[in-house]
Amino acid sequence: MKIEIITIGDELLIGQITDTNAAWMARELTAEGFAVGAITTVGDAADDLLNAINHAFSRADILLLTGGVGPTRDDRTKETLCNYFGCGLILNNEVLQHVENLFSRRGITLNPLTRDQALVPELATVITNSVGTAPLLWFRKGEQLLVSMPGVPGEMRTAMREEIIPRLKRQFQVNSYLRRDYLVTGYSESALASHLALFEDQLPAPFSLAYLPSYGGILLRLSAWGEEHASAMDLQGCELRRLLGNNCITEGNKKAEELLGELLCGKQLNLSTAESCTGGYIAHLITSIPGASSWYMGSVIAYDNSVKKKLLKVKNETIETYGEVSREVAEQMVMGVATATETSCAIAVTGIMGPEGGTKEKPVGTVWIATLYREEIITRKYNVGNNRAQNIERTAGIAILQLLRMMQEDSFS
Amino acid sequence: MKIEIITIGDELLIGQITDTNAAWMARELTAEGFAVGAITTVGDAADDLLNAINHAFSRADILLLTGGVGPTRDDRTKETLCNYFGCGLILNNEVLQHVENLFSRRGITLNPLTRDQALVPELATVITNSVGTAPLLWFRKGEQLLVSMPGVPGEMRTAMREEIIPRLKRQFQVNSYLRRDYLVTGYSESALASHLALFEDQLPAPFSLAYLPSYGGILLRLSAWGEEHASAMDLQGCELRRLLGNNCITEGNKKAEELLGELLCGKQLNLSTAESCTGGYIAHLITSIPGASSWYMGSVIAYDNSVKKKLLKVKNETIETYGEVSREVAEQMVMGVATATETSCAIAVTGIMGPEGGTKEKPVGTVWIATLYREEIITRKYNVGNNRAQNIERTAGIAILQLLRMMQEDSFS
Repeated sequence: MKIEIITIGDELLIGQITDTNAAWMARELTAEGFAVGAITTVGDAADDLLNAINHAFSRADILLLTGGVGPTRDDRTKETLCNYFGCGLILNNEVLQHVENLFSRRGITLNPLTRDQALVPELATVITNSVGTAPLLWFRKGEQLLVSMPGVPGEMRTAMREEIIPRLKRQFQVNSYLRRDYLVTGYSESALASHLALFEDQLPAPFSLAYLPSYGGILLRLSAWGEEHASAMDLQGCELRRLLGNNCITEGNKKAEELLGELLCGKQLNLSTAESCTGGYIAHLITSIPGASSWYMGSVIAYDNSVKKKLLKVKNETIETYGEVSREVAEQMVMGVATATETSCAIAVTGIMGPEGGTKEKPVGTVWIATLYREEIITRKYNVGNNRAQNIERTAGIAILQLLRMMQEDSFS
Repeated sequence: MKIEIITIGDELLIGQITDTNAAWMARELTAEGFAVGAITTVGDAADDLLNAINHAFSRADILLLTGGVGPTRDDRTKETLCNYFGCGLILNNEVLQHVENLFSRRGITLNPLTRDQALVPELATVITNSVGTAPLLWFRKGEQLLVSMPGVPGEMRTAMREEIIPRLKRQFQVNSYLRRDYLVTGYSESALASHLALFEDQLPAPFSLAYLPSYGGILLRLSAWGEEHASAMDLQGCELRRLLGNNCITEGNKKAEELLGELLCGKQLNLSTAESCTGGYIAHLITSIPGASSWYMGSVIAYDNSVKKKLLKVKNETIETYGEVSREVAEQMVMGVATATETSCAIAVTGIMGPEGGTKEKPVGTVWIATLYREEIITRKYNVGNNRAQNIERTAGIAILQLLRMMQEDSFS
C-alpha cells in the first residue's frame, strides 16, 4: 500500500518558500506505518496538477494533496479536482456554518470569496477544517483514494493529525517501520562503509543501511519495514552498535540537544550559552525542545564586542592581544556566561561566518568553541566552511556535540 | 524551455530531513531566467529513479538530479544512469587525481570505496566537484540534458553556482522572471482579494497575482515571464502599490529583518533584543543577514526568570504581581536590554509557546511584545497559536514587523 504526496503552488517552483509540508507529512505517515513512494511538487496551473494526479495514480493507492485551496484566484485545486472526477460544485451548509462561525468569532464580515469556500465538489466526502476555511476533501476512485488539504502548515498538520491519519488507519492495513539511528564521528563516509562492509554483507534482505553526512559526523540509519523483523532488528542493531564502539555519539531518533537535556536533568545540572557568530542559533536549537526551561537558563548573544565586555566580562586586553576569534576569548566567554547566569555547564562560540571578515590567518569558517562542564573547560578550533547559513548551522551543531561528548566521556570513566 | 528537479534519497521519503535543495535550486534557477516546471522526490530504489527520469523527460528539456552519489551502497544514482543511458563505467584520471588530492590534504588514506568515485559513466561529460569526491555528470540525450549532482547542500550549491548554471546559460536561451513582492497587513486573504478584484480583472495575460498567507500578513506576488513586459510590470506594480496604501509593510524581495537593518543603518541607530519564549530565534533571523554586525549589538536570552532579573533588571515584584508573561515584564525587558547593551532600539518578547505552560487566562500562544524606538515603547499582546515550532517562528516574525512598522510610521509622519 503506497502513498504519494503532491504539494501545489507556484511559490514552491520559484523557491519563494521551502516545502516543509512534505517532510512533515512523510515523517508522520512513516511513523504510523504508511510508506511514502514519491513526492511531487507542481505549480498552480491546472494541467500540471492533472498530469501529476494521473501519473501518481498509476502507481499509488493513496494521494495526499496540499495547497491551492485558498479563496483567491491563483488557487485552483478545487476546480481541477471537479474536472478530474467529472463533477460540479454544490453548497455545503456545514462548511458555510463553520466559515460563518470562524468569521463572527474573529469579528470580521463574511465576504463572497470566503462564502465560496463552502462550495464543494459533489463527489467529495467533506471533512471540516477545524482551524481554517477550506474544507478537507476526500475522494474515492475505485480502490484508490485522494485527499485534498490546505497548504498552510498549521492547517495541514491539524487536518493530518486529527482527521486524515486516523481515517487512513481505519481503512487501510498498515505496516511497521523499524528504524535505528546512530550518529558516528571519527570516520569519513567511505572509511565507515569499509569498516561496516562485512556487517552489510550479512545484512538480510528487508534491512537497509543508509549513510547521511551530517554536522559533526555521519548519521547511520538501519531500517526495515515489517513488525515481524523486530527481533532481527534488535540483533542487527546490537551488533552495529558494538561495531561502532565509542565512535557512536548518539543512538535513536533523538537530537543531540535532547540527549544533552536528558543528561543535564539526570545529573541535576543546568546550562547557559554565550554566542557570538552563531547569533542565537544554539539557543534556538535548545529552546525548540519542549521542557528545555527546566535545565536551560538562557544566553548572552554577544554579537558586538561591547556586549562581550559588559555582560560576559571578557577583558579588553584579551580581545586586543588575541583577537575576538581566539581560544582566550572563547574561554572568557564560557566562564563569563556561567558566572552571569549561575550555571554549572556552558557553551561559548566565537568565529567568522562570512561572507566578510576573513583574514589569511583566520579565514571565513574559523570557529573557537569552549564548553564548560562542572570545573573543566575544553576549547577547540574548527573550520566549518565558507557558506554563512551553513556555517551557523554547523557551528551550532558541533558546539552542542562538543559538550554532549564531554559529558558522555565523563560518564564512561 | 523547461527544467525539472529530481531529488533522491530515502531520507526524504521518510521525512528524516526536509528537502532544502529543491527550493534553493528553484530560487537560483528562476533568478537566472530558467522556469522550473516540477520537482520530484524519489527514494534510493533504482526503478523509482528510472521511472521519474522517464516521466520528467516526457515534459522537460533539462533534468537536474541531486543525491545518491556517495561512496556507500545505499547510493545508486550512478549505476541507474549507466542503466538509463546504456553505458558502462570507466576510470577518469582527473577525478582520481582530485580525490587523491582532497584526501591527502585532509591527511586521510584513500580507500577503495572513495577511489571508486573516479569510475564514471562512459557517456557522461565529467565536471570536477571542487568541494567533494563525487563528480558532476552531464549527459546529452538529443536536445535534452540531464545533470547529476551531489545531495550534500554545500556541494550542490557550489556545483550549481560555479559550474552548472554558467554552462546552462551558455547553452540555452533564458527568459526573464519579473517579480514584485508586497507584505500586506490589516486584511484577511479574501478581503484583500475582494479589494483587488478590479485590479485582477484588468491584469493582462502574462501577469499573475499570488496570495501567500505569512506571519504578520499576506505576501502578495505579482509576476510575469519575459523581459518585454518590464514596463508593463512597472505600471502594474505602481498601481498595485497605490491600492495597498499604508497596509503595505514591505515591498520587494527583501526580508523584514533586512529592511529593519537598512532603516537602522540609515538613521545610524543600533538594536538589541531580549528574548524569553522565542529562545534566540529573533537573534538568529537578524544575524542571518550578512553585515548585521554593523547595527545589531546582541541579545539576552532570558529563558529563566533569574536571568530576566539579573541581566535585564526585571523586578521580582513585577514578575510576582503580573506574571512573567505580561505587559509589565515585556516593558522592563526591553528597557533592560537597551540599557545593558547601550542601544537606541530594542525588541523584547515573553510568552507561552507550549505544549506545556498554558493557563485559562494565558493559554498557549499568548505573547507580549515590546519594541523600543528612541524614547518610545509600544507593547502589544498577540495570540499566535498552539504549535510550539510555529509559535516561535510567528512570534519572531511579528516582533520584527512591530519594530519595522514603528520606524516606518515615524518616517511617514
